[in-house]
Amino acid sequence: FLSKRIVVLPGDGIGPEVCGEAVRVLKAVAERFGHHFTFDYRLMGACAIDATGCPLPDATLEACHQADAVLLGAIGDPKYDHDPTAKVRPEQGLLALRKSLGLYANIRPVTAYEQLLDFSPLRPDRIAGTDLLIFRELTGGVYFGEKGRTADGTAYDNCTYHPEEIERIAHRAFRAAQGRRQKLTLVDKANVLETSRLWREVIQSIAPEYPEVAVDYLFVDNAAMQLILNPRQFDVILTENMFGDILSDEASVIAGSLGLLPSASVGDGAALFEPIHGSYPQAKGKGIANPIAAILSAAMMLDHFGLPEEARAVRDAVENALNDQVLTPELNNSTAYTTEQVGSFIAYGV
Amino acid sequence: FLSKRIVVLPGDGIGPEVCGEAVRVLKAVAERFGHHFTFDYRLMGACAIDATGCPLPDATLEACHQADAVLLGAIGDPKYDHDPTAKVRPEQGLLALRKSLGLYANIRPVTAYEQLLDFSPLRPDRIAGTDLLIFRELTGGVYFGEKGRTADGTAYDNCTYHPEEIERIAHRAFRAAQGRRQKLTLVDKANVLETSRLWREVIQSIAPEYPEVAVDYLFVDNAAMQLILNPRQFDVILTENMFGDILSDEASVIAGSLGLLPSASVGDGAALFEPIHGSYPQAKGKGIANPIAAILSAAMMLDHFGLPEEARAVRDAVENALNDQVLTPELNNSTAYTTEQVGSFIAYGV
Ligand SMILES: CC(C)[C@H](C(=O)O)[C@@H](O)C(=O)O
Ligand SMILES: CC(C)[C@H](C(=O)O)[C@@H](O)C(=O)O
Repeated sequence: FLSKRIVVLPGDGIGPEVCGEAVRVLKAVAERFGHHFTFDYRLMGACAIDATGCPLPDATLEACHQADAVLLGAIGDPKYDHDPTAKVRPEQGLLALRKSLGLYANIRPVTAYEQLLDFSPLRPDRIAGTDLLIFRELTGGVYFGEKGRTADGTAYDNCTYHPEEIERIAHRAFRAAQGRRQKLTLVDKANVLETSRLWREVIQSIAPEYPEVAVDYLFVDNAAMQLILNPRQFDVILTENMFGDILSDEASVIAGSLGLLPSASVGDGAALFEPIHGSYPQAKGKGIANPIAAILSAAMMLDHFGLPEEARAVRDAVENALNDQVLTPELNNSTAYTTEQVGSFIAYGV
Repeated sequence: FLSKRIVVLPGDGIGPEVCGEAVRVLKAVAERFGHHFTFDYRLMGACAIDATGCPLPDATLEACHQADAVLLGAIGDPKYDHDPTAKVRPEQGLLALRKSLGLYANIRPVTAYEQLLDFSPLRPDRIAGTDLLIFRELTGGVYFGEKGRTADGTAYDNCTYHPEEIERIAHRAFRAAQGRRQKLTLVDKANVLETSRLWREVIQSIAPEYPEVAVDYLFVDNAAMQLILNPRQFDVILTENMFGDILSDEASVIAGSLGLLPSASVGDGAALFEPIHGSYPQAKGKGIANPIAAILSAAMMLDHFGLPEEARAVRDAVENALNDQVLTPELNNSTAYTTEQVGSFIAYGV
């Protein structure tokens, strides 16, 4: 029986609502399996700017560093969206948190649920059976390189990667592939970028340590096509920060709803778990937000705690919600359930 | 009646076959409308490396500079694909040609042909009516920034943009939007990148010159989703080099076949026209390559020459091929036509 301290960052928009349901499910798991989870709520994002002037207050960062895991809802508010050049913005909190916690690997599973094939913009026969895992590097590349303006008005963003930044996430991706269908695809632009050539070199040098994993290489432009043309061909996709940002959002269309997709960000210290959807401010407080992505993020947290049986109980309960159509309106127009009803159904089911 | 000197770079793989049909169609246009086109064949790509050791021989570059337009087939050979770190590679020829001719704007129309909706991996109701135009910056950004390795083994690629590099393509994109549905979407990552923030500033400062054009802004990760979820929302998309590479290949899935999509690269001097597909070496010499993308690239060349009636005649002939199912095997399994049969049908039709 485990005792875990979880920091909850509900964030903005629908973040608090979906986090509430994920916490409900985690409490149900603790009760059923006899664990002890504590939940420490902290500010991050637009709500933190409003309250403290800073998107990631020191108290929040401190608490995250001491936690066993962090559950994040979503951040972002329209008042900041219209001005991405504003000095203080919610995203800065997220980027700073990733860097400070050393969350160098963002992991996103994409599954085409049989029950929901009709909701995807893709033809059901193209996506049925898709089950892929994206490993996106999260603390390097052009996101964190030097950026600025020169005297003549030129803007620049430098993209850098050191071999060690690549190795540590590559080992995680290879190990994940070992436990799955033994295929790893490196996505890069090695015909143009020096950083991509380094990624290839490092992956090629590591690959012999995982002889059972078949490695292949895809240029990012081709990968953006292949994800739509034939997503079943992928098992584990490994890529750098910016390409991963684009491809993982693109891949989300396979699932039919952003409201289904969880993510984990792992690294040196406490790991962070969050739905991939945004703060969706238009839906705030309406009880229509789908809590499943947040709940499946909690399931990834349980896996991370070394509790696969508990994680499976959550996933099975989600499957039951899908089977019984206990779903929010974007997936079930006829008998739509509220955020809380879906969360409660899943919590009772674990 | 015009006299135009066209340099043809057939390139590798299926390049010579599809170029042959585009030239056939251009000759038919010249005959019917009384123009005089000359065709000067030159080496570029893997074939140029094989013959001269260099992917873009001086004689080729010279001829391109003196031409009124360049028609390119496709470049690339598997013997170079497996080693993107090789010193001499076919792509280098293409990148050098773009830079030397100052081809700063790559223009790619994406149309969902009614007759071919069933070939797309996307649901027909999602894509029907799609008609968008991507303006990709082609001679700046991370493609041409400083790149290399530092003493500690860090690889770097610098992405830079000067305001003038953005202005010149932006004006072209705004003018294109004026003549279409009056909508321009800038795709960037202004919440993270300094270069993206500069793109926004420049677009915002230019927008008032085109009051009838509605401008909106989309982050690249969201754009990668929206292209699949609802491609009809787009009219003109404007973006930087790397994002444009990814998004334009992604958008190609809408059309159902890479073999349909043309492109134009324009700038200071002679413009270049090429199908967006690659050299597809497996299909070389089999007569199965779809010549339509190359033929529609020739139609863009005619538009560029200020010959809209001629361009329309070519597009109408292509429409007839689609209507009559005179198509290569990837679009018509039952009564497949050869590359040459499709090209001849269209040439007779202009
Ligand atoms: C909000 C933004 C900075 C962030 C990113 O680009 O990493 C988001 O798009 C994500 O993928 O988590
Ligand atoms: C071959 C490669 C360098 C090129 C690019 O990335 O620009 C190609 O993908 C393209 O889009 O024309």
